[in-house]
Amino acid sequence: MATGVNKTAHAFDKTRLEGMLLRRFFYAPAFEIYRGVAGLYDYGPPGSSLQANIINEWRKHFIIEEGMLEIDSTILTPAPVFETSGHVARFADWMVKDTKTGDVLRADHLVKNVLEARLAGDKEARGIAAEPKEEEALKKQSKRKDKAAKAAPVKLSDEVAAEYERILAQIDNYSGPELGQLCRDHKIVNPDTGNEVTEPQPFNLMFTTSIGPTGQHPGYLRPETAQGHFVNFQRLLEFNNGRVPFASAQIGRSFRNEISPRAGLLRVREFTMAEIEHFVDPDDKRHERFNEVRDVELNLLDRHTQAAGSSAPKRMTVGEAVGKGVIANETLGYFVARIYLFLTKIGINPKRLRFRQHMANEMAHYATDCWDAEIENSTGWTECVGCADRAAYDLTVHAKRTGAPLVVREALKEPIVTEKEVPEFNKKLMGKTFGKDLPVVTQTVSTMSEEELIKLKGQLAQGEAVIKSADGREFKLTPEILTIERQTLKQSIREFTPNVIEPSFGLGRILYTLLEHSFWSREQDADRSVLSLPVVVAPTKVLIVPLSTKKFDELVQEVSSKLRKAGVFSRVDDSNQSIGRRYARNDELGTPFGVTLDFASLQNRTMTLRERDTTEQLIGGIDEVLAVVVDLCNGAIGWGEACERLERYTGQQNVD
Amino acid sequence: MATGVNKTAHAFDKTRLEGMLLRRFFYAPAFEIYRGVAGLYDYGPPGSSLQANIINEWRKHFIIEEGMLEIDSTILTPAPVFETSGHVARFADWMVKDTKTGDVLRADHLVKNVLEARLAGDKEARGIAAEPKEEEALKKQSKRKDKAAKAAPVKLSDEVAAEYERILAQIDNYSGPELGQLCRDHKIVNPDTGNEVTEPQPFNLMFTTSIGPTGQHPGYLRPETAQGHFVNFQRLLEFNNGRVPFASAQIGRSFRNEISPRAGLLRVREFTMAEIEHFVDPDDKRHERFNEVRDVELNLLDRHTQAAGSSAPKRMTVGEAVGKGVIANETLGYFVARIYLFLTKIGINPKRLRFRQHMANEMAHYATDCWDAEIENSTGWTECVGCADRAAYDLTVHAKRTGAPLVVREALKEPIVTEKEVPEFNKKLMGKTFGKDLPVVTQTVSTMSEEELIKLKGQLAQGEAVIKSADGREFKLTPEILTIERQTLKQSIREFTPNVIEPSFGLGRILYTLLEHSFWSREQDADRSVLSLPVVVAPTKVLIVPLSTKKFDELVQEVSSKLRKAGVFSRVDDSNQSIGRRYARNDELGTPFGVTLDFASLQNRTMTLRERDTTEQLIGGIDEVLAVVVDLCNGAIGWGEACERLERYTGQQNVD
Repeated sequence: MATGVNKTAHAFDKTRLEGMLLRRFFYAPAFEIYRGVAGLYDYGPPGSSLQANIINEWRKHFIIEEGMLEIDSTILTPAPVFETSGHVARFADWMVKDTKTGDVLRADHLVKNVLEARLAGDKEARGIAAEPKEEEALKKQSKRKDKAAKAAPVKLSDEVAAEYERILAQIDNYSGPELGQLCRDHKIVNPDTGNEVTEPQPFNLMFTTSIGPTGQHPGYLRPETAQGHFVNFQRLLEFNNGRVPFASAQIGRSFRNEISPRAGLLRVREFTMAEIEHFVDPDDKRHERFNEVRDVELNLLDRHTQAAGSSAPKRMTVGEAVGKGVIANETLGYFVARIYLFLTKIGINPKRLRFRQHMANEMAHYATDCWDAEIENSTGWTECVGCADRAAYDLTVHAKRTGAPLVVREALKEPIVTEKEVPEFNKKLMGKTFGKDLPVVTQTVSTMSEEELIKLKGQLAQGEAVIKSADGREFKLTPEILTIERQTLKQSIREFTPNVIEPSFGLGRILYTLLEHSFWSREQDADRSVLSLPVVVAPTKVLIVPLSTKKFDELVQEVSSKLRKAGVFSRVDDSNQSIGRRYARNDELGTPFGVTLDFASLQNRTMTLRERDTTEQLIGGIDEVLAVVVDLCNGAIGWGEACERLERYTGQQNVD
Repeated sequence: MATGVNKTAHAFDKTRLEGMLLRRFFYAPAFEIYRGVAGLYDYGPPGSSLQANIINEWRKHFIIEEGMLEIDSTILTPAPVFETSGHVARFADWMVKDTKTGDVLRADHLVKNVLEARLAGDKEARGIAAEPKEEEALKKQSKRKDKAAKAAPVKLSDEVAAEYERILAQIDNYSGPELGQLCRDHKIVNPDTGNEVTEPQPFNLMFTTSIGPTGQHPGYLRPETAQGHFVNFQRLLEFNNGRVPFASAQIGRSFRNEISPRAGLLRVREFTMAEIEHFVDPDDKRHERFNEVRDVELNLLDRHTQAAGSSAPKRMTVGEAVGKGVIANETLGYFVARIYLFLTKIGINPKRLRFRQHMANEMAHYATDCWDAEIENSTGWTECVGCADRAAYDLTVHAKRTGAPLVVREALKEPIVTEKEVPEFNKKLMGKTFGKDLPVVTQTVSTMSEEELIKLKGQLAQGEAVIKSADGREFKLTPEILTIERQTLKQSIREFTPNVIEPSFGLGRILYTLLEHSFWSREQDADRSVLSLPVVVAPTKVLIVPLSTKKFDELVQEVSSKLRKAGVFSRVDDSNQSIGRRYARNDELGTPFGVTLDFASLQNRTMTLRERDTTEQLIGGIDEVLAVVVDLCNGAIGWGEACERLERYTGQQNVD
């Protein structure tokens, strides 16, 4: 669409982007007039609309396209649920306190910031920091826009510098005590005050509350939507006629009490997620639609590459990746590819999108394989979607705790026939013989393996046998007391706990990186910013610009009502500003098309149509232009085709 | 659509409805396998989809149709915001405790349940309780399905019975101490245990939590979304080019820690709301689109009717209601009518919908007027939408607390010219004369009224004047020290705090009452239930039923992909059950249309189309039927027209 438009004339300017997003109220710190609380953001009209459009597209791409079962479960969650899931014990970050001020810092962030600052100081001292490219690379390496620790230009020994690099490369892998050790070994203090910090303590990231008037139900705000799927598994399975595979999906708010949220929408305390739980037979993780994505090419950064100290992804098709075992199974590969297709469809730059596999020690202990969709942005590579094979963990722990049968029962086409040694006791005689020891004897025999039973059977055939109970006592058995027979058993139902493949989307992170990827400034004027959001997610599709108010009210009504009927979301800008300024404002809002109503519209019923990126303008009859705009907004045609259907507008119209 | 169908052959059966909603997983108690927590519900696939469709229609009807500014603000809210809004002090219900068991009861519910039970017992003793109509009326009178207090058949004196009726009629108006007095006066005890209850204590309904790692930010989960609009007022106003009227809108989760939630979706602890804050000039509450709704007829139960002890609504147009002053102003009337249009569009029975005006002492002290949309259901009349004129309260209190100028500045077409007495001091001379008392003297003069200044001016003209400061001291002034002159002042900007009209929707309550209004059973078989949901909100629009699996896979793919492209949400039911059973299941799910693929489809490319309410079937070519179905789902045609476009299906097809 944007042929001939130079979008890279000006370097990406984060300050300008952030200023614009605030000015146009894409989002703003929540409770700003109350001086706010870190990590909470409100979405204004364009941000809210962009988010709604991303969600809408997500719903189409995943839920509707694949017939998923959408649910809407509660945020408030009683404590036992998160005790079972492991969140109460383990959903924590390590924090340290400034020993004098009591300021709280996240331990890994502290180590990272201080070491990065020292390395930057070292480079400066070595006289290589002046190179802006180096600095930028350093900035990108950092995942967050944390308050930078002061970079004194102090030269480090080569050994120390290398040691710092080594630590930073595996910063996500240190435990709390290890982080404490690093602070002591490398004299890491709070850079804001110069004070020492305490030993790292785990800080659980869940918000707590109490449900009911008497405080009898401690509860949490969910930190993810997943448990709401698992606890409803039986009803979902029944809804799906008792069969797997099927997927449930949920879009909703989650909460994490981040220790020190500082990176805008990338690390917040309240956020909207979209999660899928795909339940699948553990013995058959093929996916029936895998062929549709087999040839999708991806940038894959597998765990072996990372372990070898490289971060250069390999490019391969998902078919190849599953075939070679890089991705564990077809279903996981299918979703990785579908995630790629979704993200690029809404406007994420495919060159700045990679899938990084979790390292063995980074992954939850029960998970089989896990890939994060990471999107590059001004703070580095940010995890925006996780896609994990969680095996049978979740359903197993909830079933164990509650006794609910969270399993699939499948009628076997061919019953499984097995032969087995079965002991049969003469209870009456046993009672006489063993008295109160009867249960011990029964128990001892019942827990014998097949092999032991065969051996025992042989001994009984000889006349008698002696068995030993768990507490070491011996009991004599005779064929009158115990017979062991080989029996044929027929199993016609297979019962199993399904495995779960979980694609989990952080919508705020996707939204923010999309804004970065869409932002640029006009070649001729760096102050004229544009958000090249794809039509499918643009907050407003069409801007209606009347030359002035009153005179054009009727035409404005006509055009906006016709667009509304066609399902195209438009807005009228009838402010007193010049048409140019109104268009410039809407370039910042990412509005892809604009139509102008002027005196020619009154006289000749013509209307001009403007495209955001190229600023090209076309002209035609009002209904003709509307037909083209509707086709553009539905994705039926591109701007090239629009240019063929309408005349180019020269800026001159015949008005009597 | 349902001509000839008798939907009232069987009386409404709430137990059957609830059983069906649970079985089909419209919604279910949350965390059921953990034995649940009262007041929390999860929506399963059909409930979730129904809710999404209601929200979608709401967005079209209000946000898109009226160009409202949608926002998405956080649920977590720092405490000062709700201190300012008054929620910390006043958002409470009165609770009592059982003096022995400690069980908690809501005071007004306790009084209501016990007195209602006594009245029922009285009727039984008088031998009139056997009449089922009486009982039903009594049941309807109750707003909630609270655990019924035991109804011993004890006759009351006529005076006592009348007194009970009088109390029940104004049960919403008692304060906590008054409820306590009622318990003592009428010996009201916990009906479950027979124990006395404590004095009523206020219980704040907001859930508390703590934001950040050090607990320095106490916070609440919002009990409504409204404050998120008010704190963002400045940005919203700027987005709207500084002009009012405009409206912001938000759809989101809210939380209330109900004391004893017991009535399913009608009283829950976590719920989805949709709220509009319409900001308007306090001096001009006309609405430019009022004419479009002027003739909408409503059932209005105004406060005078209620005060006279009646609950018979008056039927009148909204134009008449505003004209006569029954509804306070045009904008409020406009929204009341728009609410009516929305509710009836999604399927609420207009005969069971009324608007009840708040009584003077029921309304918040700052509100000018307030109307609740009440929907009748098996528990009585339930408030589902509130529509209040909140005057300038919210913006005023937040501005006062934070110092943020939450005002509109409007350029006056005609500047307002005023004349005023203006004092001017000779600072140098005053310093010499009064020394450290100078500020006191200046302050005393500056705070004088116009009248006092004129008097002072007259005295000075005589030579000198004596003024008295606030602390009673006297100071002598001369014309050299102070001159007072009449000046002409020109004001070209008008600054005002806008008023707020707030329509506030409880979506869960609307959803539940809609389910009740849509539910009926087939005349020939009470066990065959149907949900006659309108197409626009039905969870699934079209059911695709292949005669069996495998053979029809290709056709199923074709039909479902064509429907998807046309934007129609369909589901395939390829379970092993008979076609009749599959249709019956989908009648319960409210699916309005079904198409069947059978051997004739394979041979002749024909398909049958079934309508849910009438169970009538039509037949035609696959593409022909698809065209009709798409028109039906888009609301372009009704079933009558569909019957004209396709042949009636006789149950016999030509298959070789």
